Amino acid sequence: MNNFTFYNPVKILFGKGQISAIAKEIPQGARIMVTYGGGSIKRNGVYDQVMEALKDFYVLEFSDIEPNPHYETLMQAVDIAKRQQIDFFLAVGGGSVIDGTKFIVAAMEFEGEDPWDMMTKRTPVKKAVPFGTVLTLPATGSEMNSGSVVTRVSTKEKLAFGSPLTFPKFSVLDPEATFTLPVRQICNGVVDAFTHVLEQYLTYPVNAPLQDRMAEAVLLTLKEEGPKAVQNPQDYDTMANFMWAATMALNGVIRPGVPTDWSTHYIAHELTALHGIDHARTLAIVLPSLLRYKSEQKKEKLLQYGSRVWGVNSGTEDERLEATVEATIAFFESLGIQTKLSDYEVGEDTIDTIIERFEARGVKDLGERADIQIADVRQILTMSL
Amino acid sequence: MNNFTFYNPVKILFGKGQISAIAKEIPQGARIMVTYGGGSIKRNGVYDQVMEALKDFYVLEFSDIEPNPHYETLMQAVDIAKRQQIDFFLAVGGGSVIDGTKFIVAAMEFEGEDPWDMMTKRTPVKKAVPFGTVLTLPATGSEMNSGSVVTRVSTKEKLAFGSPLTFPKFSVLDPEATFTLPVRQICNGVVDAFTHVLEQYLTYPVNAPLQDRMAEAVLLTLKEEGPKAVQNPQDYDTMANFMWAATMALNGVIRPGVPTDWSTHYIAHELTALHGIDHARTLAIVLPSLLRYKSEQKKEKLLQYGSRVWGVNSGTEDERLEATVEATIAFFESLGIQTKLSDYEVGEDTIDTIIERFEARGVKDLGERADIQIADVRQILTMSL
Repeated sequence: MNNFTFYNPVKILFGKGQISAIAKEIPQGARIMVTYGGGSIKRNGVYDQVMEALKDFYVLEFSDIEPNPHYETLMQAVDIAKRQQIDFFLAVGGGSVIDGTKFIVAAMEFEGEDPWDMMTKRTPVKKAVPFGTVLTLPATGSEMNSGSVVTRVSTKEKLAFGSPLTFPKFSVLDPEATFTLPVRQICNGVVDAFTHVLEQYLTYPVNAPLQDRMAEAVLLTLKEEGPKAVQNPQDYDTMANFMWAATMALNGVIRPGVPTDWSTHYIAHELTALHGIDHARTLAIVLPSLLRYKSEQKKEKLLQYGSRVWGVNSGTEDERLEATVEATIAFFESLGIQTKLSDYEVGEDTIDTIIERFEARGVKDLGERADIQIADVRQILTMSL
Repeated sequence: MNNFTFYNPVKILFGKGQISAIAKEIPQGARIMVTYGGGSIKRNGVYDQVMEALKDFYVLEFSDIEPNPHYETLMQAVDIAKRQQIDFFLAVGGGSVIDGTKFIVAAMEFEGEDPWDMMTKRTPVKKAVPFGTVLTLPATGSEMNSGSVVTRVSTKEKLAFGSPLTFPKFSVLDPEATFTLPVRQICNGVVDAFTHVLEQYLTYPVNAPLQDRMAEAVLLTLKEEGPKAVQNPQDYDTMANFMWAATMALNGVIRPGVPTDWSTHYIAHELTALHGIDHARTLAIVLPSLLRYKSEQKKEKLLQYGSRVWGVNSGTEDERLEATVEATIAFFESLGIQTKLSDYEVGEDTIDTIIERFEARGVKDLGERADIQIADVRQILTMSL
């Protein structure tokens, strides 16, 4: 097992009715900005529950944070919040609203010229305004981690930052808040969470059996509960299990002491930045090719994953490796998520563009062994055509 | 799944060499009391590493905290620490030293007459001095939770308290610090951690498949790594896996949203209080009888545990239930831990004493269904004779 540091101070309030508990978690007298997206929270009752819970606070609303939240939009929120002396934020929505709010709280206290430097120059966050979240879409895990991904429209860049200062103070996970989700978003959420686990699991063995089994526990839960959630999105227990699994997929619990490989996310972000393809779908495009391309290097863990999650136990080693990738693809496609670039009408010219962008940005050494270079990215994407 | 709150802000520094990192985790200029036990840390090098790391701080030592730490001893530490204006504590040891230190940090700020009221009158902790830990014995999970159990010698009481204010600020888990543990303590640690998991798992199903599998992940790891640790206590990976499993057994991760049954601990504490039997051994005495006595009420989870952890898949339901309890007993006994009161020369008179004490204290309604009454405790202990 590798050395590690684990720290996650997010308080989780899980279950029906928990939105009403948020007032106790926010400092008395706080001036709150409630951030949200396109307004689905007004149709499913979450907005009303939040406003009722906050009725004794000063509340300002900032809506229309888009999927893959835009730097340009978020900077407007920063501007308004500074003028209104906001000192607490409440993100109500899915990963985009939460990621966007993490950017806002850090940008509020940023002391340099442009908070975008947190992404491009890795300028560290030194201070941030506290915030909480009310989650409405199980998927990204952002409700219980400190990471954030933001898109800059002007440059078509989608980049990440994070800091111990951008953990939410609390997150409410009420499965009932997911009951009106469109099927498309549920499917995306299952694939996003499933991929998060695989990126912390499909590397090489370091004799960490507990972390392996915990990762498999999340995978098996998503495998079983995901399709049920699509069929029956108003079944409380199903949505509760899906919701908790998606949070546990990326809150650090399965990650300590093991290598990780975030290259799927890194490459896939380009497809969203360039073509606006749903985040989860871009993962489903990149991951299978990456696994096939690196199957020799990831062999031990791929075979374990195939056996323990998909029951792939017969055939030669090569056959089992391929059957494991096929099982993963079949799972994604059973959720209506296609896995080829051509399914999204994206062709070779996009691969050229991504390679050019990576060359300009100086990307190298992706993967758990730092052995995925730009030329390998081209190969992987070509396999996904 | 039941509603739940999850909160665990303990920062874990895991791996070899991590003791040297503690200075960065302690406020500059802190006046530190280092608490420890009988001095094994001086023989295995941990003491020297700690003192080297703290060389720029004012450090006072308080040693000889005994197993099942004594209220009387801990109050001496409180007295000295107050006089020396200690404002940070570092517990270096196993669960007893850490539990004892939790009592000290809360007692330092206790405003009533006697801090023992935290146990008997459930007087809430309103303030506590911050502390960190350096773990030397994987077992209790105290390094990553807020609970504490303290023994009052004068009244032969062993009672628990806890508060969000008694989480350690950080805990160092260096597997190398366990390399010189006596076999007896390793065996005790495995059984203690294993029982912690079962108390959060062997209740009734609430449709929480992720929590179930996470619990089984810890059980399978302890089943596999525990015997290896006994055979080879200086194998780094083995001790690392045992250490992390024991922490994960009681840091809250496997517990959210599921019922728990702490009656084994509650009853077993009496055997330590009255006879000084090692804590883990008292659990091994009580648990099998409790499982047999409540096998009908715990049937679904017992059968799942038997199948997934011990491979008990054939026979009638009654046969599988009994085979599952037998497998648990066999595991404990394979670690040299006996499971009958008679093995410890304890007889029926002790059962009478325990029942009298429970009647005097007004104990009732133990177990996940609050259906274990004092008469049931007598039955359970009688089955363990």
